Amino acid sequence: MNFCVPPVLRLNEDANVHGVFLCLPPSLLSRRILNTIKPEKDVDGYLLCVCVCVCVCVYVSPLCSDAPLAGKTAVLVGLEGPLKVILQVLLQSDGMEVQTSLWSSDSLQKLVRYSGWVVADFSMSWVENQQYQPWTLRPLKLQPLSPVPSDIEISRAQTPKPIVQLAEEIGLLPEELEAYGCTKAKVRLSLLTRLQHQPMGKYVLVAGITPTPLGEGKSTVTIGLVQALSAHLKLNSFACLRQPSQGPTFGVKGGAAGGGYAQVIPMEEFNLHLTGDIHAITAANNLVAAAVDARILHEATQSDKALYNRLVPSVNGVRRFSPIQLGRLQRLGINKSDPSTLTPEEVSSFVRLDLDPAKVTWQRVVDTNDRFLRKITVGQANTEKGHSRQTQFDIAVASEIMAILALTDGLADMKSRLGRMVVGSSRSGQPVTADDLGVTGALAVLMKDAIKPTLMQTLEGTPVFVHAGPFANIAHGNSSVLADQLALKLVGKEGYVVTEAGFGADIGMEKFFNIKCRASGLKPDVVVLVATIRALKMHGGGPSVTAGVPLPKEYIDEDLHLVSEGCSNLKKQIEIAHLFGVPVVVALNIFKTDTEAEIDLVCRIAEASGASAAVPCHHWTRGGRGSVELAHAVKEAAAQKSHFRFLYSLQTPIVEKIRTIAQKVYGADDIELSPEAQAKIEYYNQQGFDTLPVCMAKTHLSLSHMPDKKGVPTGFILPIRDVRASIGAGFIYPLVGTMSTMPGLPTRPCFYDIDLDPNTEEITGLF
Amino acid sequence: MNFCVPPVLRLNEDANVHGVFLCLPPSLLSRRILNTIKPEKDVDGYLLCVCVCVCVCVYVSPLCSDAPLAGKTAVLVGLEGPLKVILQVLLQSDGMEVQTSLWSSDSLQKLVRYSGWVVADFSMSWVENQQYQPWTLRPLKLQPLSPVPSDIEISRAQTPKPIVQLAEEIGLLPEELEAYGCTKAKVRLSLLTRLQHQPMGKYVLVAGITPTPLGEGKSTVTIGLVQALSAHLKLNSFACLRQPSQGPTFGVKGGAAGGGYAQVIPMEEFNLHLTGDIHAITAANNLVAAAVDARILHEATQSDKALYNRLVPSVNGVRRFSPIQLGRLQRLGINKSDPSTLTPEEVSSFVRLDLDPAKVTWQRVVDTNDRFLRKITVGQANTEKGHSRQTQFDIAVASEIMAILALTDGLADMKSRLGRMVVGSSRSGQPVTADDLGVTGALAVLMKDAIKPTLMQTLEGTPVFVHAGPFANIAHGNSSVLADQLALKLVGKEGYVVTEAGFGADIGMEKFFNIKCRASGLKPDVVVLVATIRALKMHGGGPSVTAGVPLPKEYIDEDLHLVSEGCSNLKKQIEIAHLFGVPVVVALNIFKTDTEAEIDLVCRIAEASGASAAVPCHHWTRGGRGSVELAHAVKEAAAQKSHFRFLYSLQTPIVEKIRTIAQKVYGADDIELSPEAQAKIEYYNQQGFDTLPVCMAKTHLSLSHMPDKKGVPTGFILPIRDVRASIGAGFIYPLVGTMSTMPGLPTRPCFYDIDLDPNTEEITGLF
Repeated sequence: MNFCVPPVLRLNEDANVHGVFLCLPPSLLSRRILNTIKPEKDVDGYLLCVCVCVCVCVYVSPLCSDAPLAGKTAVLVGLEGPLKVILQVLLQSDGMEVQTSLWSSDSLQKLVRYSGWVVADFSMSWVENQQYQPWTLRPLKLQPLSPVPSDIEISRAQTPKPIVQLAEEIGLLPEELEAYGCTKAKVRLSLLTRLQHQPMGKYVLVAGITPTPLGEGKSTVTIGLVQALSAHLKLNSFACLRQPSQGPTFGVKGGAAGGGYAQVIPMEEFNLHLTGDIHAITAANNLVAAAVDARILHEATQSDKALYNRLVPSVNGVRRFSPIQLGRLQRLGINKSDPSTLTPEEVSSFVRLDLDPAKVTWQRVVDTNDRFLRKITVGQANTEKGHSRQTQFDIAVASEIMAILALTDGLADMKSRLGRMVVGSSRSGQPVTADDLGVTGALAVLMKDAIKPTLMQTLEGTPVFVHAGPFANIAHGNSSVLADQLALKLVGKEGYVVTEAGFGADIGMEKFFNIKCRASGLKPDVVVLVATIRALKMHGGGPSVTAGVPLPKEYIDEDLHLVSEGCSNLKKQIEIAHLFGVPVVVALNIFKTDTEAEIDLVCRIAEASGASAAVPCHHWTRGGRGSVELAHAVKEAAAQKSHFRFLYSLQTPIVEKIRTIAQKVYGADDIELSPEAQAKIEYYNQQGFDTLPVCMAKTHLSLSHMPDKKGVPTGFILPIRDVRASIGAGFIYPLVGTMSTMPGLPTRPCFYDIDLDPNTEEITGLF
Repeated sequence: MNFCVPPVLRLNEDANVHGVFLCLPPSLLSRRILNTIKPEKDVDGYLLCVCVCVCVCVYVSPLCSDAPLAGKTAVLVGLEGPLKVILQVLLQSDGMEVQTSLWSSDSLQKLVRYSGWVVADFSMSWVENQQYQPWTLRPLKLQPLSPVPSDIEISRAQTPKPIVQLAEEIGLLPEELEAYGCTKAKVRLSLLTRLQHQPMGKYVLVAGITPTPLGEGKSTVTIGLVQALSAHLKLNSFACLRQPSQGPTFGVKGGAAGGGYAQVIPMEEFNLHLTGDIHAITAANNLVAAAVDARILHEATQSDKALYNRLVPSVNGVRRFSPIQLGRLQRLGINKSDPSTLTPEEVSSFVRLDLDPAKVTWQRVVDTNDRFLRKITVGQANTEKGHSRQTQFDIAVASEIMAILALTDGLADMKSRLGRMVVGSSRSGQPVTADDLGVTGALAVLMKDAIKPTLMQTLEGTPVFVHAGPFANIAHGNSSVLADQLALKLVGKEGYVVTEAGFGADIGMEKFFNIKCRASGLKPDVVVLVATIRALKMHGGGPSVTAGVPLPKEYIDEDLHLVSEGCSNLKKQIEIAHLFGVPVVVALNIFKTDTEAEIDLVCRIAEASGASAAVPCHHWTRGGRGSVELAHAVKEAAAQKSHFRFLYSLQTPIVEKIRTIAQKVYGADDIELSPEAQAKIEYYNQQGFDTLPVCMAKTHLSLSHMPDKKGVPTGFILPIRDVRASIGAGFIYPLVGTMSTMPGLPTRPCFYDIDLDPNTEEITGLF
């Protein structure tokens, strides 16, 4: 059997090979072991040859066997590259047939555990590899300066760890990582299989009170919290963040990598192309759009026969339906697979999607703040023969494909969601899907890498997943289910995953619970509710706050009255979290103008309102050290039992779902449906879309639909202007008021300050 | 001095540190060495401390010194991360001041060479690193099957080497590589500095005769040739290819990674997002477009004062021009830097670009075949206040930014080209640039990674650069200057770089010589002219060839008459190459229907027409082995002296440049300018754009402007319909006939066949 060992060791040095190669004397292959292994194919008692995804190979060689092997069958499993070749040669030289099959790494572990000397030999390291890896995180030192420099200066001043090093520190295997340069890497979903039996960590949601137009710092709180947990409390923790849209980075908003000493680094990588996920979404979304208009044109200008001959062409004299066309035939109730057997009627219904140009709901997207694309007319060239129509571009993150990326749990699920996407309806009122267009496979191909979350790090070298960033009003505004699932496995039983919801708790948190948690099956343990004295004063009756305009003095000077009045909003948001049975920790994001008295007052009121704790946070000026108190509070709250429950069941009729949210969450007396909304709901009921959750598209600047109504508005009726559906993503979204899905550029966009030094390659002006 | 060594060794294990740390006794610092080093700052005779980019550090520590160091100055150069910190502490603890300066790795090498024991000590390895690394290429074995499987099957059947392994084999340093997953990596431009004194290899251009609409296989010839050179003749060689547009991959065209057994692998990576360069171009292009329309709107709706207050806002009471605004002031002849000192007239001319909406030439792009975007009306939403206008989208690779990427020689040059891009003209007829919009820095930031060529490999594991893919008619259609320059350094003196030109030789080759070589200063050694029996028969009078339609029998059966007649086109293309003084090798791309007699005939005529050699190529069915004969022929031709010369001087007037190309290359009697073209040329002359090279936008299906005129058309006048300019890219492009810059989707796009297996993640249906 020695002849096996050297090739193995060599193989293990070969980056093409992911595994080791074991030899077992048949004497080891007791029934007990064979039963443990449960091969899917019958395996000869004398011979067992198996390779699992991670390529451990158990092979009974004639040299260590007491039986002849000729004519036996070897089972090779999920093996790639040289090892496969060598093994096949080896086996065939022993006169064996080689077949392939499937194997679970699980059963292999059991096998190796039972066969003592194998473990002792050289598979132990592999076996251990398959177990959960304890973290060996080496945080980066932080020396905060005062006054706090610009975000890009802080980001640049810290040298990030090589991403492969961070990956190793948190127990990722090399084959689970796809580096993109030195500071970011995609993580393969195979991790979920390897750690399927690993208990998950605590699941923490960061939400906020109703914010000012300036935002109250949910992202910085999220990052500060994991910096505190990992770098200071030495507890495994992961932040899961949304990838920001690139467009606004060059408009007014600036970046979204946190700020001050609570940032993801390098912030320019985070804020720009990252690993290309949004670009992939743009490509996929616009391929659908191009297919829609081209199909309308082709149907309008060709006979059934011509369409059929082109859609099902004769290739070398053979006509065949492609698999996706067979799917459409089935949906049409035509159970035929031979193109020549369709009746003219069947041909007609097959080739004609009969999309009503006026009822196309699919829109193009671009990741640029381009206000002139808000309403456009396309198809005005002669080549389009007058089939022009009015449509619009949305910002890329508003694409339904982004919402799908955020809610999917794997490739198979993503592909079927992409196929279900409704692009419009036919003249006869039937929904037309991506599957009907035949584009689903291409979309899955375009999205195959985007589905893998991107690993980055905080200023203190703790791990962060950046993945998906759906719109927070027409979509659910939360980062991806997959990133949370991967992170919960990686941090382990004692660890913490901190994820952020978009907008105020009344919107982001409600959608996190009712939509995201429903899709993922994950149960949150704690809600961190972010508040600022500034926002509380606004809710207490302070003058309006506007971006770019200096703050009125009420927000600079101490004003306990405004603060205490404004806590009504905080109290209400705490109550909303409790509706879902989850404990709340209030994180007061401190600004230098906040006074001790104001801070104490908020914390007292918050705790009196049922918060498990309320603590001031200084992460912006001090990094993780400034959030240690919050980290302790979260740890305690997470130790309590969470009694998570949904606000409504999927079986509840659409109208009732909307009413429940309006009344219980927003505090509305009732809802009022426009005739349009009414009609849409009836249509969705007919189509069987009524068991989807609802995703409210409402302003985040008030608990109500009226942005200027601060505090806790009461006595209002919530008007539902229209209702739309993202069938692929899997939710109905009622429109409360009008939502802009395409931001614009101001007179002086921030790109005036953005520059690149050609010599140092240093970027300036990003914030 | 021992205290120095351990930290060094530790540091060398630290992935953050790229270098070693040396100690020199002052006795070594003879005048001679100091002169060799030529520090930019005075350096005390007793003390010298220097770190070059690659971080060798020569440090005289008190412990190995005979003189006190307090008060001396240390010079730290180009050092990053921990080493810098440790060194600073070390030096300061010796009472030294620390300054930073620049150093050339060059002078360091000399230093180390002189100071004997240092070299002996542990810097030798570093010094060697700086030299050129001989290749240790391990080709991948190829076992071609017959019949030849589909491209994606062939691609998938071959396991590519890890890209880091290939990089090491061809002498790249780890710090020069940015891996994107396991099969592709970006190469840093710092390589050009490291190998600045390295002699370059031979420069081979692959062009083709006038093709059929099916294409004659320039890409496969290019890839087959490097597979033969590297894997079979064991000569260093590099293929430099264009990145294909993603849109057509889902339309009719399919992929562009070569085909059969001459491919770049993995072909799906090559054909899809790759490393995001085209996505970056799309983002940059569309940011300019959004800025243009937003600016027109803002100027139309605001007073000079309002615009000025917004463009130069008071931040904390201070008003400042951003650097790019100061640039505009200078172009306006306003030499002021204090915003408060501008006269109302100066303010007005500063804030008003006064773009004429009818004269905006900048268009949006998308990397999708979306015919409905060929002519559109934007700005129809109320928020745009009626400022709608008609415009269009082009396919992303038609963006001027793509042409810039292909022609630039570095970040600084790219940034200034981006700034010079003309987006339209003012009502007074002045060109308005990206610099005027203030967007240049942001564009450079968006393009900072795209400028690095992407390293991939052929089916036989030989290196390929994929970089840039500008349109071949409205732009010059060649891969990037930077990829060629990097490759020419990497292959070394005896090596070969094979790069491909777009379209027929009359277009692609002419632009390669007159535009690309002029920009790069590189001199080509050989032209490989690709021909097929099929195309020659067409030129000889064969029936027309149409994609998707079976070939007429003339193309299946032997027909020596058609072939010999058609060789007129081949002969003419050879003459064109000779106009530029470069030897020609004809590569006859063999199809299974070609007969021996036909092949011999072509080869005889080609050599009689002045080709250095003419050889049949079987790369499609046999890979590199099928192109060995071509490789030998190229090697011989490259050994001859090339007498490269341009066809015209830049000082020649625009009209003369056009006439020269029309007469000498296309064989036209003369040119005829439309009044519009005439006017444009006058305008460009006024603007001082007349010394740019011209980039003809002509059909590639004929030497003339008439696609159906095959062979060698004569007696025609070339009509110049219009003349446009890409000032950033640096050329004037006359339009001969109309050019579509946005392809469409056919009735049955190839996406019907494209699919992804969710379990194996295998892609099917790409070709």
